[in-house]
Amino acid sequence: MDISEKISVLYVDDELNNLNSFKAAFRRDFNVLIATSGQEGLKILEENTIHVIITDQRMPGMTGVDFLIEVLKKFSDPIRILLTGYTDVNAVIDAVNKGHIYYYINKPWDEDQMKIVIRNAYEIFNLREKNRELIDKLIEVNGQLEFLLRQKLIS
Amino acid sequence: MDISEKISVLYVDDELNNLNSFKAAFRRDFNVLIATSGQEGLKILEENTIHVIITDQRMPGMTGVDFLIEVLKKFSDPIRILLTGYTDVNAVIDAVNKGHIYYYINKPWDEDQMKIVIRNAYEIFNLREKNRELIDKLIEVNGQLEFLLRQKLIS
Repeated sequence: MDISEKISVLYVDDELNNLNSFKAAFRRDFNVLIATSGQEGLKILEENTIHVIITDQRMPGMTGVDFLIEVLKKFSDPIRILLTGYTDVNAVIDAVNKGHIYYYINKPWDEDQMKIVIRNAYEIFNLREKNRELIDKLIEVNGQLEFLLRQKLIS
Repeated sequence: MDISEKISVLYVDDELNNLNSFKAAFRRDFNVLIATSGQEGLKILEENTIHVIITDQRMPGMTGVDFLIEVLKKFSDPIRILLTGYTDVNAVIDAVNKGHIYYYINKPWDEDQMKIVIRNAYEIFNLREKNRELIDKLIEVNGQLEFLLRQKLIS
């Protein structure tokens, strides 16, 4: 992982206490942005590069899963993680299997484990991005190679 | 993820009951190999391509962390996951921070969450491998390009 780049995490929760304790726990390690609803979260995504999204499932209006499905339509890059109580498990596993969520964490979350989950999620983000860049570069160099070979055939 | 390739998981635990229940739970989804000690696990790694290693921490002789440190010396590719009780947490977090472990799971493990952890670990394995292949290919094509450009300068 590139240590010099700070990981940007968007945390979405309707409870102010949770938002504050999340920010207090992780602001030294990550660039933490917060939102009190899915709608607010979508606005933040439009204006910022976010690597990892963590959202509570139980929120009035838009649930966490519904929010992450909306996210996926417009922003496919951030790694999507759901925070959930034990009672929501079936809906959550369905969402994972459909590809809407990368991972889910049972509440209450543990600070050390959360840090590891965020760093691992960022590694996935980073590797996917590097793969795309390498493929683009390969296509470009292949194009140059073909051009030169064609020139050689003509001359 | 390439669905056609089955994910190979090595599970290490000194308790036969745990080995049997792990195998029963995951043999339909993954290619499961089991070992009753770190020493046995290392032998299996010499003879098989393993994508994900899951090991219990508390074992007589070689602990899970010690086993994974040995694994890392010889086999850097498999994704290393530790199963741990709540009392081992400090040693485990130290091992994660030193890069010896990719992730840890508290016991008792949940079948659905374990499946997701294994699939996500395999995505990391796969992306790292694809990255290496793309870099090798890029170096090769760049070499061909340089060769042709040099020829052009000479002629």
